[in-house]
Amino acid sequence: MNKKKLRISVLAALVDGEWRGEDVAVQELADLAGAGVGQLAYIDDIRKMAAAAECSASALIVPLAAEELSLPVIKVSDPAWAAAVIHNHLLSKDFVARGVDARAVVGEGCSIPDEVSVGPLALIGDRVQLGHRVEIKAGVVIGDGVTIGSDVLIHPNATILDGSIIGDRVIIHSGVVIGADGFGYAHDQQGRHVKKPHVGYVRIDDDVELGANVCVDRGTFGPTWIKRGVKIDNLVQIAHNVEIGEDSIIVSQSGIAGSTTIGRNVIMGGKVAVSGHLKIGNRVTMAGKAGVISDLEDGAVVAGFPAFAHKKWLRAVALFQKLPELAREVRELRIKLQELAGKPDDK
Amino acid sequence: MNKKKLRISVLAALVDGEWRGEDVAVQELADLAGAGVGQLAYIDDIRKMAAAAECSASALIVPLAAEELSLPVIKVSDPAWAAAVIHNHLLSKDFVARGVDARAVVGEGCSIPDEVSVGPLALIGDRVQLGHRVEIKAGVVIGDGVTIGSDVLIHPNATILDGSIIGDRVIIHSGVVIGADGFGYAHDQQGRHVKKPHVGYVRIDDDVELGANVCVDRGTFGPTWIKRGVKIDNLVQIAHNVEIGEDSIIVSQSGIAGSTTIGRNVIMGGKVAVSGHLKIGNRVTMAGKAGVISDLEDGAVVAGFPAFAHKKWLRAVALFQKLPELAREVRELRIKLQELAGKPDDK
Amino acid sequence: MNKKKLRISVLAALVDGEWRGEDVAVQELADLAGAGVGQLAYIDDIRKMAAAAECSASALIVPLAAEELSLPVIKVSDPAWAAAVIHNHLLSKDFVARGVDARAVVGEGCSIPDEVSVGPLALIGDRVQLGHRVEIKAGVVIGDGVTIGSDVLIHPNATILDGSIIGDRVIIHSGVVIGADGFGYAHDQQGRHVKKPHVGYVRIDDDVELGANVCVDRGTFGPTWIKRGVKIDNLVQIAHNVEIGEDSIIVSQSGIAGSTTIGRNVIMGGKVAVSGHLKIGNRVTMAGKAGVISDLEDGAVVAGFPAFAHKKWLRAVALFQKLPELAREVRELRIKLQELAGKPDDK
Repeated sequence: MNKKKLRISVLAALVDGEWRGEDVAVQELADLAGAGVGQLAYIDDIRKMAAAAECSASALIVPLAAEELSLPVIKVSDPAWAAAVIHNHLLSKDFVARGVDARAVVGEGCSIPDEVSVGPLALIGDRVQLGHRVEIKAGVVIGDGVTIGSDVLIHPNATILDGSIIGDRVIIHSGVVIGADGFGYAHDQQGRHVKKPHVGYVRIDDDVELGANVCVDRGTFGPTWIKRGVKIDNLVQIAHNVEIGEDSIIVSQSGIAGSTTIGRNVIMGGKVAVSGHLKIGNRVTMAGKAGVISDLEDGAVVAGFPAFAHKKWLRAVALFQKLPELAREVRELRIKLQELAGKPDDK
Repeated sequence: MNKKKLRISVLAALVDGEWRGEDVAVQELADLAGAGVGQLAYIDDIRKMAAAAECSASALIVPLAAEELSLPVIKVSDPAWAAAVIHNHLLSKDFVARGVDARAVVGEGCSIPDEVSVGPLALIGDRVQLGHRVEIKAGVVIGDGVTIGSDVLIHPNATILDGSIIGDRVIIHSGVVIGADGFGYAHDQQGRHVKKPHVGYVRIDDDVELGANVCVDRGTFGPTWIKRGVKIDNLVQIAHNVEIGEDSIIVSQSGIAGSTTIGRNVIMGGKVAVSGHLKIGNRVTMAGKAGVISDLEDGAVVAGFPAFAHKKWLRAVALFQKLPELAREVRELRIKLQELAGKPDDK
Repeated sequence: MNKKKLRISVLAALVDGEWRGEDVAVQELADLAGAGVGQLAYIDDIRKMAAAAECSASALIVPLAAEELSLPVIKVSDPAWAAAVIHNHLLSKDFVARGVDARAVVGEGCSIPDEVSVGPLALIGDRVQLGHRVEIKAGVVIGDGVTIGSDVLIHPNATILDGSIIGDRVIIHSGVVIGADGFGYAHDQQGRHVKKPHVGYVRIDDDVELGANVCVDRGTFGPTWIKRGVKIDNLVQIAHNVEIGEDSIIVSQSGIAGSTTIGRNVIMGGKVAVSGHLKIGNRVTMAGKAGVISDLEDGAVVAGFPAFAHKKWLRAVALFQKLPELAREVRELRIKLQELAGKPDDK
C-alpha cells in the first residue's frame, strides 16, 4: 500500500487547527502508546500531557489548552474529531473499480455502472440498481428490486432482501440481514399462529453504518426506516416499521420492537430494550441495559427496567444493594416501638 | 406481478364473515392509514371506528360489533385473524419450480424432487432429502444427511448443518444457524476445557418459523427439538437439547440454556433468559427481559430477575423507584423514635 | 462411518482410570438413558447410581467412590472429563484432505499446504496463509492477509476479515464475523458522527472456540486478542481492543465493550454485559445477566446490575420481591409511632 505522506501544516488546515514546531510529514495515525516515527497521535484531554511528553510520535494533535511540547503539534478544539478527520484523509484513496467478477451472479434488468466492484460468489437479484463506486464483497446476497446509492460498502456474507432502499455512503458489515419478515402473527381459536404477510420494505438513508449480524426487518406495510447518519453496533435488532431519527447511535445487542419511533441524536447504550409502538423523543439517552416501556420526551436520560430518570435510578440501585440493612433497620424499629409502646406507664 | 382481484363476498366466506354494502373487488390488504382504491384494510377494535370512517380503502374488515359504515365491510369476530387469512390468500400463488440452478452445488446421494427451486451459490451436501416445493435461496448451505419437508422456504445465507430434520412449511430466515455444536466442556485439573463432542441433532417440526440470525444448537446426544407451530424472532439462542412445545412464541434476543423444556403456547417476551435444565409448563408467559432460573407451572405469568409473579413484580418495581423515599422515611422514623424514647420521663 | 471399537481396558488407560468387570469393547459414548449395547455411558455423581444400575450400556464410567455394579466400569476421579476425553478419542479420525475445491475462489500470493480441505463456494483472499489440516467449509469468506494455524475448522458461512491471525486447533462456527470494524465515532459540532478508522486486527490464539454468529471486532489500533483456550458461546459480542485471558468461558448473548481486559479462567454467564475500559481479574465469575460497570479483582463473584457480590445480591433480590411488605411495615410503624407520640400525656 502506498500511503500518503503529508505535512502537519496541510493536515492542520483540514481541521481548522494551528500547527506549532517543525512542519514534519506523517503517514499514519497511531495510538499514543504505540506511535513512532512518521506517525501522528492525539490526546483528547490535557490530563494526558505527561504521557504525551513521552510519546515517540513525529507529531501530536492536542487540545487548544495544551502547553508547549518538544514535539510538533496540531492544536484544535476537539482532538478526537480532528484525529478522525485526519485519519480518514490519510487513508482515503481512489476507488478501484474491478467491475463485476465473473464468478458473481447477476440477475436480469439490473442497472450497474462501470465504476463498481462486485466480488466473486456475490449474488445480485433482478432489477437491482447500484450507484457509483459501490463495493459488494464475496458472499453478499442482494434480493430483487433493491436500490443502492453511491459509495456504499457491503462486507462479505451480508444479505439485503427484496425491495430494500439503501442511500449513499452506507456501510453494511458482514452477517447483516436487511429486510427479513417482521415478527407478526394473528392467532386462531386453537392458539395457532397465522403469519401476517410483511409487504413493506426497509429504507436506509445516507451515511448509516450497520454492524455485524444486525437485523433490520421489513415493514408489515410501508417502511422500516433508518435515517441519515444513524450508527448501529453489532447484533442489534430493529423490528418492522421502526423509525430511527438522524444521527442516533445504538450500541451492541440492543433491540427495538415493532412500530416504535426513535428521535434524532438519541443514544442507546448496550443491551437496551425498547418496547413496541412507543415514541422516543430527540436527544434521549438510554443507559446500557435499560428497558424502556413508555414514551420518552426530548432530552430524557433514563436507566433501569422499567426505565426511569437516570439520576433517580442511581440512587435507587445504591439502596437496592443495601436492602438487607434497610430491612434490618425496620425490624429493629418495630422491636423498639413495641418496647416503647409496651413500656409500663411508669409511676 | 399479476395479483388476484377478489370480491368481498368471496373473501368473507373464507373467514366465516358476513359482508355488507357493495360487493366490491379488492387486490391487496393495506394498513388503515394508507389504504386506497382496490385495497382492503381492517380495524381490530371498534374504538378505531372514527379512523375507519375516514379511510379511503375500498372495503374494511371490522369487528362484529361495528356500526354501519359508508364503505363495504366484512364483519368477523376476530378481524386481525381474518385479515391475516385473507392477506395470505390474496398473496398466494402457485409454486414456481426453477429446479436446481447450475451454479448451485449438490452433493452425492441426494433425493431432490423436480418441483423445487435451489438458487445459485447454494450448497447442498451429501444424502440430503428435499420435499416438494422447497425453495432454497442463494448462499444457503445445507450439510450432509439433512432432511427437509415440503413447502419449506430457506432465505439467503442460512446454514443448516449435518443431520438436521426439518418439517413441512418451515420458514428459515437469513443468517440462521441450525445444528452448530452445543456449548459444553469438561475441565481438567489445570482449568483447561475439553470439548464435549455433540453427536445429537436438531429436529424442527412443521410450521415453525425461525427469524434472522437465530441459532439452534444440536443436541449433545439426541435432539434439540422445536415442535409444530413455534415462531422464533431474530437473534434468539436455543441451546443443545432444548425442547419447545407446540405454538410457543419467542421474541427477539431471548435465549434458552441447555436441556430446558418449554411447554406449549408459551410466550417469551424480548430478551428473556431461561436457565438450563428447567421445566417450563404450558401457556406460561414471561415478560420481556425476564430471567427465569427455576421451573414454572402451567399458566404462570412472570417477570423480573429472578423471575416471579408478574403482578407482584409490578408492585415491587414501583417501590424500587421509590426506594430513596422509603429509606428517608425509615431514617425519620428512627429519629422520631429516638426522640420519643428519650422524651424526658415527664413530670 | 467406520467407528473404532475399543476395549475398556484401553480406554481406562487413556484417562488414568481403573477398569472392573469384563473387558468389553465399545464404539460410542451415549447418554445414560439412551445407551445400549456397544455403548459407554457415564455418571458424574454417585447419587445417580440407581439410574446407572438400570442402564443398558455395555459399560459405564463412574466416580471412584461408586459401589460395585453388574456392568463393567471405568473408575475415574472426574467422570465428565474422562467421558469427554474418551468420546473425543472414539470419534477421532485421520484428517481427509480434499484439497481446494474447484468451485472455491483463492486469491493471489496464498500459502496453502496440500493437506487441507477448502469446500466449494468458499473464498480465500490474497496473501492468506493456512496451516496443515485446515478445513474450510462452503460459504466461508477469508479476507486478505489472514493467517490461520493448523487443525483449524471453519464452519459454513463464517467470515474472517482482512489481517486476522488465527492460532492452532481453533473452531469457528457458522455465521461468526471476525474483524469487522469496531464501533467508534468522533462527533462534530452538529452532532454528526465521523467514523474512526479501525486499522487494528483480531488475534485468536490456540484452542479457542467461537460459537455461531459471534462477533469479534478488530482493534482501533492493535489487536482485539482472545487468548488460548477461551470458549465463546453463540451470539456473543466482543468489541474492539478487548483482551480475554486464557481458558475463560463466555456464555451466549454476552457482550464486552471496547478496550476491556478480562483475566484468565473467568466465567461469564449468559447475557452478561461488561462496560468498556475495565480491568476484570483472573478467575472472576459473573452470574447470568450481570451488568459489570467497574473493575473486578481476582476471584470476584458478582451478579446483578450494577454488579456486586453475588452473596449480597441473593439477599437483595430476595428482599426486592418483598418490597411491598417492607413498605407496608414502614407505613404501619409510622402510624403506630404517631399514635404513640400523640398519646395524651395521660393523667
